[in-house]
Amino acid sequence: MHFADRLMEAIKVKGSPICVGLDPRLNQIPDFIKKKWIAQEKNPWNAAGESILDFNKGIIDAIYDLAPAVKPQLAFYELYGMAGIKAFQDTVKYAKEKGLIVIADAKRNDVDSTATAYSKAYLGLVELFGEEVKGFDVDALTVNGYLGYNGVKPFIEECKKFEKGIFILVKTSNPTSSEFQDVVSKEDNLTNYEIMASLTESWGANDLGKSGYSFVGAVVSATFPKAAERLRVLMPNTIFLVPGYGAQGAKIEDVKFCFNKDGSGALINNSRGIIFAYMEDNKFSGENYKEAARNKVMEMKKSLSALF
Amino acid sequence: MHFADRLMEAIKVKGSPICVGLDPRLNQIPDFIKKKWIAQEKNPWNAAGESILDFNKGIIDAIYDLAPAVKPQLAFYELYGMAGIKAFQDTVKYAKEKGLIVIADAKRNDVDSTATAYSKAYLGLVELFGEEVKGFDVDALTVNGYLGYNGVKPFIEECKKFEKGIFILVKTSNPTSSEFQDVVSKEDNLTNYEIMASLTESWGANDLGKSGYSFVGAVVSATFPKAAERLRVLMPNTIFLVPGYGAQGAKIEDVKFCFNKDGSGALINNSRGIIFAYMEDNKFSGENYKEAARNKVMEMKKSLSALF
Repeated sequence: MHFADRLMEAIKVKGSPICVGLDPRLNQIPDFIKKKWIAQEKNPWNAAGESILDFNKGIIDAIYDLAPAVKPQLAFYELYGMAGIKAFQDTVKYAKEKGLIVIADAKRNDVDSTATAYSKAYLGLVELFGEEVKGFDVDALTVNGYLGYNGVKPFIEECKKFEKGIFILVKTSNPTSSEFQDVVSKEDNLTNYEIMASLTESWGANDLGKSGYSFVGAVVSATFPKAAERLRVLMPNTIFLVPGYGAQGAKIEDVKFCFNKDGSGALINNSRGIIFAYMEDNKFSGENYKEAARNKVMEMKKSLSALF
Repeated sequence: MHFADRLMEAIKVKGSPICVGLDPRLNQIPDFIKKKWIAQEKNPWNAAGESILDFNKGIIDAIYDLAPAVKPQLAFYELYGMAGIKAFQDTVKYAKEKGLIVIADAKRNDVDSTATAYSKAYLGLVELFGEEVKGFDVDALTVNGYLGYNGVKPFIEECKKFEKGIFILVKTSNPTSSEFQDVVSKEDNLTNYEIMASLTESWGANDLGKSGYSFVGAVVSATFPKAAERLRVLMPNTIFLVPGYGAQGAKIEDVKFCFNKDGSGALINNSRGIIFAYMEDNKFSGENYKEAARNKVMEMKKSLSALF
């Protein structure tokens, strides 16, 4: 099934447009998990990788019936080298077995032939001595569009072949995103993020699913609600992957602008706010981090339901 | 020693500003290497990883006395999962043992706290259960600046602490780089790549080495020589990492614009043109890919020497 249709259907089935960000910061993973793996694994890198996987599995078990998607952030896996990459691969596999859509947040970007290597690694097939085998095989990948169409086309090709998706960075959630993204163009009087939005909408325009959405999505932060409102108009057929809610400061009323009027078209991410919810509420401790995460997703689901 | 000084000195010692791009496309690696590893390794992923490492070691042996730096392109390692990451790690180690400066071409980018994870992974130290240990420990990393200063600052901090460098994507070598990078701003009448150039120069301005160059470098393609000429003026204290020479079409006279008038300030990359030189010259075959690579670097060194 077309990626956009698959995501829209999953949002309906789960009754929420929530994406759980799997950013497993080792120092915030509960001690009982880390102690177990330090005891079992001599190599500290492997102990880190196994702790991350164990923690992620717990989160996935706790939320898979409530949320349609998870978003592992590659930086927190690359940090642990090979062991981290193994934890990433095994997390992807486990999440897919539980029926979750997996979005790798890697913000990859490069020139044509190199972008092809990234797109095969994450979305397509890897050629191994004449045989084609699956690589990381995630459902979707975040992509930085600074290089223009050449750098995006290889991903689009894999999306077409394998019913995958990408999300182009349009407006990011960090405080200084305006430094470059808000520069206004002479020709069209548009900001850079609006220009990137128009490119994104055009790159996906030929490949809409039955839902009316394209497999070329956009990353649009909820921390700049006015920008999001404007971008919703510029990209009617584009699904928004929305960071910034929770730990980064955006409130539930801010994310409203990321949806189309029918309440569709956005996937709201929350990472730290969900997976480390146990640290913010005295009711919970490390031992019941899963319950804390589940509790947080249920709260978020309720708040989002009230929006439409 | 400050990264810029170290690189400038290495260029002087080797007598060339050449960077050898290690983009080990498996299907172009000579058969005799792949056959050896397919016979020795049951797991085809490991056979791919070992073939890449073996090939890279041969290239490094052939060029380390002629070139100051190598640039492994992460996409071609991530493609092979854990085995690819192992090949990357071992390639970095081997190149450093041979006295080469290693630039990881990863074009990483993310918001503050996530960029910190990337900067620790590639340039700094990784915290493993209370101990700080080296991660990939390359000398420099390419970074995409679309997110603005928040996304770059974590890398700058590691550069200061550990005498490392970064190269910000300013003007890329691909044909459609103009699509976004050449958009002209209303306020300053500057293109996006010129704005990124000014940001890059400013991000590095407080941290110049004795050479007068900063550890915040720029990726400036030789495929757009007029842009390069303009960028050289805008970024007097910035070292240019220059892609586009060779397979991507830029000629030796095009790269001239990337240097300052004294012939310093640029590092000219060539990937496929060097490492797969054996495929383009009937004199050579897979068995003597090292000689072909060495020969190509010597040719390139001669051409570059004639420029100043």
